[in-house]
Amino acid sequence: MAASKSQWLTFSIILALASTAISFYLSRRKTKSKSRGEVNKKIHELEASLKSALEKCAAERQGRIRAQQALRKALSGPNSVNLELNSYPMAPIAIVHSCFSTRNGTPRQPLLVPLARASLIFDSSRVPPASLEGLEGYSHCWIIYVFHLNTDLEKLWKPSSQSKFKAKVRVPRLKGGKMGVFATRSPHRPCPIGLTVAKVEAIRGHILLLSGVDLVDGTPVLDVKPYLPYCDSILGATVPDWVKEDRLLTVASVNFSEGFSSSLADCWTMAEKKSLYASPNEFEILIRQVLSWDIRSISQRSRPHDFPVHTETGSTVDDASTLEHYQEDEAFENGFSAVIYHLILEGLDVSYRIDSKGNVFVENITVSSHTQTLS
Amino acid sequence: MAASKSQWLTFSIILALASTAISFYLSRRKTKSKSRGEVNKKIHELEASLKSALEKCAAERQGRIRAQQALRKALSGPNSVNLELNSYPMAPIAIVHSCFSTRNGTPRQPLLVPLARASLIFDSSRVPPASLEGLEGYSHCWIIYVFHLNTDLEKLWKPSSQSKFKAKVRVPRLKGGKMGVFATRSPHRPCPIGLTVAKVEAIRGHILLLSGVDLVDGTPVLDVKPYLPYCDSILGATVPDWVKEDRLLTVASVNFSEGFSSSLADCWTMAEKKSLYASPNEFEILIRQVLSWDIRSISQRSRPHDFPVHTETGSTVDDASTLEHYQEDEAFENGFSAVIYHLILEGLDVSYRIDSKGNVFVENITVSSHTQTLS
Repeated sequence: MAASKSQWLTFSIILALASTAISFYLSRRKTKSKSRGEVNKKIHELEASLKSALEKCAAERQGRIRAQQALRKALSGPNSVNLELNSYPMAPIAIVHSCFSTRNGTPRQPLLVPLARASLIFDSSRVPPASLEGLEGYSHCWIIYVFHLNTDLEKLWKPSSQSKFKAKVRVPRLKGGKMGVFATRSPHRPCPIGLTVAKVEAIRGHILLLSGVDLVDGTPVLDVKPYLPYCDSILGATVPDWVKEDRLLTVASVNFSEGFSSSLADCWTMAEKKSLYASPNEFEILIRQVLSWDIRSISQRSRPHDFPVHTETGSTVDDASTLEHYQEDEAFENGFSAVIYHLILEGLDVSYRIDSKGNVFVENITVSSHTQTLS
Repeated sequence: MAASKSQWLTFSIILALASTAISFYLSRRKTKSKSRGEVNKKIHELEASLKSALEKCAAERQGRIRAQQALRKALSGPNSVNLELNSYPMAPIAIVHSCFSTRNGTPRQPLLVPLARASLIFDSSRVPPASLEGLEGYSHCWIIYVFHLNTDLEKLWKPSSQSKFKAKVRVPRLKGGKMGVFATRSPHRPCPIGLTVAKVEAIRGHILLLSGVDLVDGTPVLDVKPYLPYCDSILGATVPDWVKEDRLLTVASVNFSEGFSSSLADCWTMAEKKSLYASPNEFEILIRQVLSWDIRSISQRSRPHDFPVHTETGSTVDDASTLEHYQEDEAFENGFSAVIYHLILEGLDVSYRIDSKGNVFVENITVSSHTQTLS
């Protein structure tokens, strides 16, 4: 009786110990494979970024070589680069002076950011102020513009036979899947013409003030038309499912660092003159509105360690500076990605991070060193 | 005794288990930290090469931009009389093959005439059929086109200094009153670019079939974009009162002459081949739909005896033929105006009258003698 009792005791103790030992081992194994998985993921991300960086580099190189060859040809003879007989030369009527200094941060849609302002400055040599009379009576207007940041823009000056363009383009919402260019609003189209709508705020002589814009600073404008609801707003218009799936992401929260307000105040003295905003406060609201949407590309979102290389953010300057900051600090800080993203508004460089839960933390604002080269 | 024995047994077993567990854990730990070091090394290598790749990329980009700027200058520089320094040559991607042979009768708005069909025939040398993939998934699309019938189109090839355009245009709905051109959709704009929407019917290779069009035959198309309701349809967009006042007039009735069907049958043998319509019946429904709106200009409406000369009906050919018929017969016939109006659809000349109460009487249909000159 007593023996069997103590045997039972022994057995149970052994069992207990064994199980703890095993569970301990398993837990180690689990955490190990987890951390192993993370670094593997990171390595794959880095390899992917490197691959796309090299691809983009090759593309830029091709573009540079093409342009330089065409330039030599153009300089060698007056009519050696002959325009298409049937091409229509369109001279911009206005240039956009927008709060968005780079494509990075420019909203993906019009009217998403109410405070996003732009002034269209009309070429008064061609467009007398009288031509704007009556436009202020409309709530909205169309802006037809040139995608002037396209890297292959020089194709326009080549005969069509030499200016083949990609028939299909990668669609972010299809995670890299391709669609025919005319099934998208991609900037890379045979005629690089953009169409967007904005709210009409006011007209001051040869300047048209707009809000809710998704236009980047310096955009050449070909035409402005009133928005006519009875023509332009189509009830029951439908889109394919792959477009429906593209939900615009709002972030969980936008918070500013303690020092932000004073940094903004410092920058403001420089920005104030040419600013579209009345005060640093109003400008801070703009920043909040812009960052309240997740403006990162899908690849950035899905791979927080990735660099915005093959994204629509455009400016390689941003890529470089992001990388720079990235290397300063590799670890995660209380859940925030180590990547510091940059949003340049009116030439002011807003640096921010975003954590895995979509909380945005705005770190600092400085006068962008790239303002000149960008605008 | 037995008890202590079993205790010893237990203890030894515990010891054994514990030691194995610990040693196992330690061994795991060792290998782990080892592999950690390797991956960190690899990560740093990858980051270094990525950094240099991005820097190289930025340099290439700068080079490309410089070359392209120089190229644009060179292309417009030498004989700058031909081209504005900053003008963008836009080559049409497609030509419209529309049921509307002349501007006269072309609806004032898209989607007013459901059966109004057009096929956009893409320049397959520039636009591979693949570029249309996915467009059929949308219910509607935008068409950005050139107002190619503008009589002052040659201004495009002149330097802006010599191509002054009218800042204000007559607005029919203002009964001749004027508005700033950018407050209207007038074709006479600095960049003669039109914007309209249509229903996507089908895609056949390099041909896009549309309905509800307000495009005239032969229109050059610069771009086609999917209609995105969440961007393009603006709830609560408003227009000024003078635009609201423009009620589109529907006619009271549309009736056909006894002989009409047989005349149409005769014409059909000629029109059938290149027709966008399946049968004479379908074509007759088109005629009914087009004429169910009063397509006459305001001046025609208000002065039924006036000749539609300085109206938007465009084609002087029509005016001439109207005049011709008008002179045949000056009197009123049972309330119908003596003026016989002409609507040319697919090169078929539909002649009709309209009485003071807005009843349309379709008299005849013939093969237009002007088809060649018009298309």
